[in-house]
Amino acid sequence: MSIRARPEAVSEAATHRLSLLLRCLKTLEAERATTTSSRELAERFGLNSAQIRKDLAQFGDFGIRGVGYRVGELRDRLRTVLGLDRTHRLVIVGAGNLGVALADSRNFNGDTFKVVALFDVDGRKIGGKSRTGIPIRDATDLPRIARESEAEIGILAVPVEAAPEAAARLIEAGIQAILNFAPIALGPMPPAVVKNVDLTLFLESLSFQLAGRG
Amino acid sequence: MSIRARPEAVSEAATHRLSLLLRCLKTLEAERATTTSSRELAERFGLNSAQIRKDLAQFGDFGIRGVGYRVGELRDRLRTVLGLDRTHRLVIVGAGNLGVALADSRNFNGDTFKVVALFDVDGRKIGGKSRTGIPIRDATDLPRIARESEAEIGILAVPVEAAPEAAARLIEAGIQAILNFAPIALGPMPPAVVKNVDLTLFLESLSFQLAGRG
Repeated sequence: MSIRARPEAVSEAATHRLSLLLRCLKTLEAERATTTSSRELAERFGLNSAQIRKDLAQFGDFGIRGVGYRVGELRDRLRTVLGLDRTHRLVIVGAGNLGVALADSRNFNGDTFKVVALFDVDGRKIGGKSRTGIPIRDATDLPRIARESEAEIGILAVPVEAAPEAAARLIEAGIQAILNFAPIALGPMPPAVVKNVDLTLFLESLSFQLAGRG
Repeated sequence: MSIRARPEAVSEAATHRLSLLLRCLKTLEAERATTTSSRELAERFGLNSAQIRKDLAQFGDFGIRGVGYRVGELRDRLRTVLGLDRTHRLVIVGAGNLGVALADSRNFNGDTFKVVALFDVDGRKIGGKSRTGIPIRDATDLPRIARESEAEIGILAVPVEAAPEAAARLIEAGIQAILNFAPIALGPMPPAVVKNVDLTLFLESLSFQLAGRG
C-alpha cells in the first residue's frame, strides 16, 4: 500500500520538515485533537500546506478524504518513516562541554535516543559522570562498549585535529551513522552515514544577513 | 560593477556553500597558491564546479578569463559578501554546558566573532568565567552590557521554556540577529534575524537514513 521513498532520494530539508511536522502533531495530540488538515497545520504552525501534502505523498497515502489526517495515525506513521519508533543507542566521543551538553540534553538522551557513554582520552575525566549520570569512559574501550551496547550512532564532539581518527574508530566499532560537530567536513565513509554539523556556518549565515543591511 | 544579491533572496544552503568555498580558498592560500579554477576547487574539495560559478555569479563577476580566480582576491570578496571582513560581537544567554562550549570555541570567539559575555540567572554561576576567560554575567545586566559593547548577535543556549522570553530580551537590548539552540522554533522577530538550530533534527535525519536500511 504505502510507497516508501528511498532515504537517499529525500533531501535533508525534507526530513527536517517531517520532523517538524511530527512535533506539530504531538502538540495537537496533547490538546486531544483527533483530526487535522494540511490547512490547519499551515495556519497554526506556519507550515506550507502544499509542501506538507507533497512531503507526505512521498511515503504513501496518508490523507482521508473529507477528514484530512487522523492525528494519532499520522504521528505513528511519521515516527516509523523517521525511524523514531524504536530506540537508537548513541556513543559520544569527546567529554568536553559540547559532548556533555549533548549527553545531558533530553533530546539526545531520552526515549528514542539513548546515550550509552561519553568517551575521552583525558585521564582526569575518565571514570567520571555527566550531571545526568552518563559515564565517561576511556576512548580505548570504545570498540568493545559500542559493540556490547549495540550502539548505532556516534557523535563526534572532539577538537578538529582529533576528528578524522575518532571517526575511523567509530566505523571500526561498527557504528552506522556519525554526527560530526568538529568544524571539519568529513567525507563519506560507506557503509556508514556521515552528517557534518558545522555550527560556524549558522553564524556566518547570520553575518551574511547583517552584511546586506549595511 | 558588482551586483549584490539581496540577502533574503539567497538560500541558507547557498550561504553555507559560500562559507565552505571560503574555507577551501584559505587552504589554497596556506599552500601559497595564487590562482585557482572552479574545476580545481571541484576536484580538490569535492565541490560542484557549475554550482560554484552559479553561486559566485550572484555577487558579481569574480572570474578572470584564462586564469580562473585569483585566490586572495576571491577570498577577500567572499569575506566581504559574508560580512566576515569585520568583527561581530556576540552575547550568549545560558551558561550551561552548551553556552560555555560555544563561548570557548575558537570559531565562536576568535577574530571575526567575539564573545562579550555569557549570561545566566543562576547566582552560583554569575561572577565566574569560562575556561578561556569569558565572564558569566547576571542576565538582568544583559541590556546594558549588550548596548555598551555594541553586540549584534545573541546566542540562545537556554532550556526550551526560557527561550521565548530570553529572545524578547535580546531584541529589547538591540540585538539584530539571534541564533537559537533551544529546541523550539522561534518565529520571525523583525527587524531582527532569527535562525533556529535544532540539533535534534540532525539526529532524526540520521535515524531516517538508518530506517531506510531495515
